[in-house]
Amino acid sequence: MDYYSKQISQMIGELSSLPGIGDKSAQRLAFHILHMPEVDVKRLADALVDARHNVRYCSCCQTLTDQDICPICSNPKRDHSTIMVVEDSRDMAAYEKTGEYQGVYHVLHGAISPMQGIGPDDIRLKELMERLSSTEVSEVIVATNSSLEGETTAMYVSRLIKPTGIRVSRIASGVPVGGDLEYIDEVTLLRALEGRRDL
Amino acid sequence: MDYYSKQISQMIGELSSLPGIGDKSAQRLAFHILHMPEVDVKRLADALVDARHNVRYCSCCQTLTDQDICPICSNPKRDHSTIMVVEDSRDMAAYEKTGEYQGVYHVLHGAISPMQGIGPDDIRLKELMERLSSTEVSEVIVATNSSLEGETTAMYVSRLIKPTGIRVSRIASGVPVGGDLEYIDEVTLLRALEGRRDL
Repeated sequence: MDYYSKQISQMIGELSSLPGIGDKSAQRLAFHILHMPEVDVKRLADALVDARHNVRYCSCCQTLTDQDICPICSNPKRDHSTIMVVEDSRDMAAYEKTGEYQGVYHVLHGAISPMQGIGPDDIRLKELMERLSSTEVSEVIVATNSSLEGETTAMYVSRLIKPTGIRVSRIASGVPVGGDLEYIDEVTLLRALEGRRDL
Repeated sequence: MDYYSKQISQMIGELSSLPGIGDKSAQRLAFHILHMPEVDVKRLADALVDARHNVRYCSCCQTLTDQDICPICSNPKRDHSTIMVVEDSRDMAAYEKTGEYQGVYHVLHGAISPMQGIGPDDIRLKELMERLSSTEVSEVIVATNSSLEGETTAMYVSRLIKPTGIRVSRIASGVPVGGDLEYIDEVTLLRALEGRRDL
């Protein structure tokens, strides 16, 4: 990194510390930024700093937002009696993109992972239970990832909620739409078989 | 992008305007940044703004630097009579990484491309000719890319310099080290044949 002058190296260093950005991409980004109008660079930098400074957890669903209550939780048109539990805010955005889900969310900010030392107390489960005891909820849909950690978390959440009498469901696991059976792993194929529905 | 609150969307928008960063990567970066300590975000933002603010063209070789004369041009140990002409600062860094080249550079900041409306006056050729007339130069090595634009530029540079009597050379084109002949395009194979050397 001594091939560039100090400030350029510094910028490349900062950029390459971001996830998914290697040395080459950081260089490409850096030179792109050096050729951008100065006001645009300022706007980019401000967007990062402002968002980081103002963003907090929604006091209801725990997603990241710049308001006290996120737009979804404060929307009276949503069905507040159905809560979808997701691992992070991006998963919530993924379901929002479908445009079909009318309920609200709860963001755990992680999944239980004994391997990484993440236990039930390290994710926002307490907040979920408090929410369930203070509001009228008819169903909790567990939409954690279909990974080992996601499944563990789903099991844990369901055991925690079952005694309260609230319905707990899990999103289906199976062959993705457009998926080619030939290339799909055995576990997914078995899950798809188990979850078969009458036509 | 309405799935996130305003400031998060804004940050995602700014990030996805960078080259090679699509919507998904921008979201991943944004959430990574939201989870970074605030001082680190400030440092990242400052690095971008400071570099953009202070970086200028080296008055000698035209590379981007934060000094008036870049470290390579101001290094008395370099051979200032050999100038390697490259398209941009990253190409210069690529040759610097080899650790073998002892001469200096000249950065054109582009290549002649009639298709994109970039003519000889749009790249830093005038500065190169001024430099050649004011300093003692024994060889100019043209190391523009091996693309149509790079080759056009190389031809143009060589025609421009030849009348001055200075030696002009072009880096070799051929099979890359470790390259498998089977997978190499015909033009490269012919170039490699033309450029063959006695063993």
